[in-house]
Amino acid sequence: MLSSYRYSRLVQFADTDLAGVVHFTWIAKYMEEAEHALWRAAGLTIAPADSPLRYPRVSITIDFKAPLYFEETVEDHVTVTAMSRRAIRYAHTLTRGDTIIATGTMTAVCVKQDVSGMQATDLPDDVRAKLAVMPS
Amino acid sequence: MLSSYRYSRLVQFADTDLAGVVHFTWIAKYMEEAEHALWRAAGLTIAPADSPLRYPRVSITIDFKAPLYFEETVEDHVTVTAMSRRAIRYAHTLTRGDTIIATGTMTAVCVKQDVSGMQATDLPDDVRAKLAVMPS
Amino acid sequence: MLSSYRYSRLVQFADTDLAGVVHFTWIAKYMEEAEHALWRAAGLTIAPADSPLRYPRVSITIDFKAPLYFEETVEDHVTVTAMSRRAIRYAHTLTRGDTIIATGTMTAVCVKQDVSGMQATDLPDDVRAKLAVMPS
Amino acid sequence: MLSSYRYSRLVQFADTDLAGVVHFTWIAKYMEEAEHALWRAAGLTIAPADSPLRYPRVSITIDFKAPLYFEETVEDHVTVTAMSRRAIRYAHTLTRGDTIIATGTMTAVCVKQDVSGMQATDLPDDVRAKLAVMPS
Repeated sequence: MLSSYRYSRLVQFADTDLAGVVHFTWIAKYMEEAEHALWRAAGLTIAPADSPLRYPRVSITIDFKAPLYFEETVEDHVTVTAMSRRAIRYAHTLTRGDTIIATGTMTAVCVKQDVSGMQATDLPDDVRAKLAVMPS
Repeated sequence: MLSSYRYSRLVQFADTDLAGVVHFTWIAKYMEEAEHALWRAAGLTIAPADSPLRYPRVSITIDFKAPLYFEETVEDHVTVTAMSRRAIRYAHTLTRGDTIIATGTMTAVCVKQDVSGMQATDLPDDVRAKLAVMPS
Repeated sequence: MLSSYRYSRLVQFADTDLAGVVHFTWIAKYMEEAEHALWRAAGLTIAPADSPLRYPRVSITIDFKAPLYFEETVEDHVTVTAMSRRAIRYAHTLTRGDTIIATGTMTAVCVKQDVSGMQATDLPDDVRAKLAVMPS
Repeated sequence: MLSSYRYSRLVQFADTDLAGVVHFTWIAKYMEEAEHALWRAAGLTIAPADSPLRYPRVSITIDFKAPLYFEETVEDHVTVTAMSRRAIRYAHTLTRGDTIIATGTMTAVCVKQDVSGMQATDLPDDVRAKLAVMPS
């Protein structure tokens, strides 16, 4: 069972904006990429091709601490901090070397998707078997 | 029947990159937005909710003529230049006032999408009834 | 002086993801677009070409309430909820008709940008003259 | 001197659209990422922090051959096919295993950027010393 993952990512040109730094929505994308990398490391995928289950975000918070620049390497340490019957909460810390770039939280919920839309549903057994809350 | 459309768009902050100008992939997105606006103006949608038909691009060409900046208004004049049984070809001219920002072409093909993937198929009757090639 | 703005936006194809809904980072982009539209309505720009001042985000929170789909129109009601010497806090409510899509907050800080990076600095007089906190 | 590079990239969730495949503008972004990776492999950067030189695209062509899906690995083989005094032309072939996903060309031009805009200028010596046209 996995509770955390360290995801490393090179900043690409298209991630930047006219202020010369990474646009804030890319910090959020790096966090999502880290979450999905944690799932892969646990032997899971967030979007199984043969399943109606999806894991949309229901809340995010991000505090931006320092600017991040083109071709820098950022590391996101993502940790599972809570799991309920239907939701998983993650904490994120993004760093460039010893500098904290951003911290954040994201809560994703399990939904069943069909033509009528999305309905919250219980996390499947394989997710419960492979992801665990980090002991505090 | 419609053969062309003039789509107007304000440049947003997130469309820019560290060079201070609109990133080239956003020029391509403006062209796709204009194509979809042409379809709406013709009473169509590129992604009907109750249909397996989709219209992915099979080729694009873009020539970039002048930089485009934050909060400028760009207009894309999109024209249907060819229709075959399964494909539609568009020409695009993006301008800011009298300045040409970019010109391009895009060819989209009609596909039927199911679990096995995408298969090219004939354009449906309502598309043929509402879009027409611009007389030259 | 302006304290709020209602920004309307059509969901574009590229805003969606494989779950068939608007990707969560686009909700954040819509909020930024609304903020900049508020500034324009107040006679301001967030990125004056002849100034070293920029307004990066230092924190965001978003709660996602309902999925948003291609070609729907979303409205973001953005309100200035606090101003300090160097920072502005906004509240956002995104709706599609009577349905709340998301709520959120964003805090932006005024920085002076030069080759050495970004340094927090006081909000300029024209911003103080044209934006005001919404009376509660 | 380097003439080509093989860039490998995992497809991220945010790269996909409601058709369930990678959005075409992301194919263009992968090509730009590969170009920049070629520059890094040659000991160069496309955006030196202490230089007014930038390398915007002046033309692109892309043919899309097969859909690409979430969590697949795509490889872009980028090759320098021509260099003039001010411009570099690249050819790109994107593959997933033995399947060709897309082929394309991109031409970038060297510009000097200042407050008055962008002016085309000669490629600097270090770029000429480290990148070379692939012998045919």
